[in-house]
Amino acid sequence: MRHLPKVKRRLHDLEVDAVLVNFAPDVRWSSGFTGSNGLLVVTTDAAHLITDGRYRDQAENEVPDDVMVHISSNGLDAYLAESDLLAGCRRVAFQADHVTVSRRSDWDERFDGVEFVPVDQMLTNQAGVKSEDEVEAIAAAQRLTDGVFKDLLHLIQPGMTEKEVAAEIVYRHMKGGAEKMSFDPIVASGPNGALPHARPTDRVLQKGELVVIDMGCFLNGYASDMTRTIAIGAPDEEMKQAYAAVLEAQEAALQVARSGMQASELDAVARDVLASHDLADAFTHSLGHGLGLQIHEWPRVSRNSDSELSEGVVITIEPGVYIPGRFGIRIEDIVVIEEEGCRNLTTSPKDLKQIE
Amino acid sequence: MRHLPKVKRRLHDLEVDAVLVNFAPDVRWSSGFTGSNGLLVVTTDAAHLITDGRYRDQAENEVPDDVMVHISSNGLDAYLAESDLLAGCRRVAFQADHVTVSRRSDWDERFDGVEFVPVDQMLTNQAGVKSEDEVEAIAAAQRLTDGVFKDLLHLIQPGMTEKEVAAEIVYRHMKGGAEKMSFDPIVASGPNGALPHARPTDRVLQKGELVVIDMGCFLNGYASDMTRTIAIGAPDEEMKQAYAAVLEAQEAALQVARSGMQASELDAVARDVLASHDLADAFTHSLGHGLGLQIHEWPRVSRNSDSELSEGVVITIEPGVYIPGRFGIRIEDIVVIEEEGCRNLTTSPKDLKQIE
Repeated sequence: MRHLPKVKRRLHDLEVDAVLVNFAPDVRWSSGFTGSNGLLVVTTDAAHLITDGRYRDQAENEVPDDVMVHISSNGLDAYLAESDLLAGCRRVAFQADHVTVSRRSDWDERFDGVEFVPVDQMLTNQAGVKSEDEVEAIAAAQRLTDGVFKDLLHLIQPGMTEKEVAAEIVYRHMKGGAEKMSFDPIVASGPNGALPHARPTDRVLQKGELVVIDMGCFLNGYASDMTRTIAIGAPDEEMKQAYAAVLEAQEAALQVARSGMQASELDAVARDVLASHDLADAFTHSLGHGLGLQIHEWPRVSRNSDSELSEGVVITIEPGVYIPGRFGIRIEDIVVIEEEGCRNLTTSPKDLKQIE
Repeated sequence: MRHLPKVKRRLHDLEVDAVLVNFAPDVRWSSGFTGSNGLLVVTTDAAHLITDGRYRDQAENEVPDDVMVHISSNGLDAYLAESDLLAGCRRVAFQADHVTVSRRSDWDERFDGVEFVPVDQMLTNQAGVKSEDEVEAIAAAQRLTDGVFKDLLHLIQPGMTEKEVAAEIVYRHMKGGAEKMSFDPIVASGPNGALPHARPTDRVLQKGELVVIDMGCFLNGYASDMTRTIAIGAPDEEMKQAYAAVLEAQEAALQVARSGMQASELDAVARDVLASHDLADAFTHSLGHGLGLQIHEWPRVSRNSDSELSEGVVITIEPGVYIPGRFGIRIEDIVVIEEEGCRNLTTSPKDLKQIE
């Protein structure tokens, strides 16, 4: 899962002598290095990874043979400035959306005669298209999350608090080998479900309510992400109808997603289904987002997105409806976009499960 | 825990008409707002918080009456540019170490006639000195971590894996009410202990080995952080002696830490003790760091630190020794610096516990 050749290709597109990659997920994608502190320097004829002493052995083990590892003792930028790694480089591209104003201004003092070229989203589109082994890594993370959901269906009971369910979610992911959660799990019961980004509280799960559970982990660096909504006791008619509408919207989107489609068009498919049930206003967020080494990646799948869905992109499809003061419903799968459609990496059931 | 008056004072120091606070922990410290997406605009006569629709109710509940809440639908910066919040402001300070080059460059297009003044560590020293309620919040987080350690002493057994112990650590913190971990827990057994930032692996805890356990959580926004080293079965003589040396170094530092002292001087106290046991080279990192709303804050407590320890600063004191291929030992408490000494917020025992 090292994509250095794709980084080298950017040298030509950008007409620069070197690129600096400092954003950790991009460093990992480019070189395989998984440490938190690294600066990748790629020139036309060489590639160097600067890190610190904590990562000496790890870096050597992780990067391919054609990446030279350097250990800095007083900061990555200081090392670069004192080395000759940029010798002969006049134009050097950097990740303008991942370098602070302070750091950039510091470079003016450290480097003489280098023109730094700011580039937004330097590797975004490249890293957005997943290789087969990356898709398998995401699928493996998702299998772990699917397994946790299966456990939850046996484990959740009326009387548990949202926080207790969240603790179980984290515990079971970690026991299953996850490095960490890809975001803090959402367990939002009753009216809390109407807040799309609710944090778990001490609220007790009660009969007659819905619970939105949104969770994911990082496994071998790659993210999973899934939402299911379950009922505690019997849901009322309004809940059942809204649930059926959200599921219909999601399945409509899953049916048509394919490469070449505009992301905004896919968002519209789900949104139109909800509109046909008079629930357009209750769907207050976008349909989905890319994921991979980050939990939120390009492309956005929203009304305003100008991205096209490319083959190999992995996205979430997660319509929802939120009825303030009453309940929320969201159903989220992750899929890989293929030439003739999309492949669902999520296997958890989607009928409305009722916990007694 | 809202420190808006201290932010207002910066207007004068910096000779600006407004300051923009965008770094989430600083937004929280300044205004009480705990959401992840906020921009605080403070002028001489007003304070405004711009956030998005997800946080409407939360923001109104969290900020004091003299902060006006604004909800943006197309981005915080776009809202600010289209509003008149900066009317009449010519010089506007911003957090140069928390604003990317892209965002800064975008401002040139959005704002006319505003001079943006880059400021590093705008609120670092101010937020570093904790109020009494902040110290109590850190102490509460630490009590939770102390409780988890107590559980661990009963729960850990030879044959468990590092990852299993880590999963228990996370589970018990979350059951205890933590929002999240303040960092991924370290459970490093045997030779893994010699890597100060080891990640938990599937390695099985074995008799005759030491295990370094470094863990902390966020509770009500404030961080805890503690390291203990325990023995599985009987430790050998070298381990016992090294443990005694680390404990002696830590206690020496705890004894002398007080306001007015140089952070580098405190680091030297612990380092000298280890040197007297021929372990100077085995102590490969700095003695400690500040913590609060962030797990790593000003001041650094290291050889090269130029910070003085002020009254009200909360720091870790965490000497360690690392013997490659064999074992590691680290003992870490958090303390609040006071006029005549320091107060330890950590209550977990520090004698070498032996698990059979």
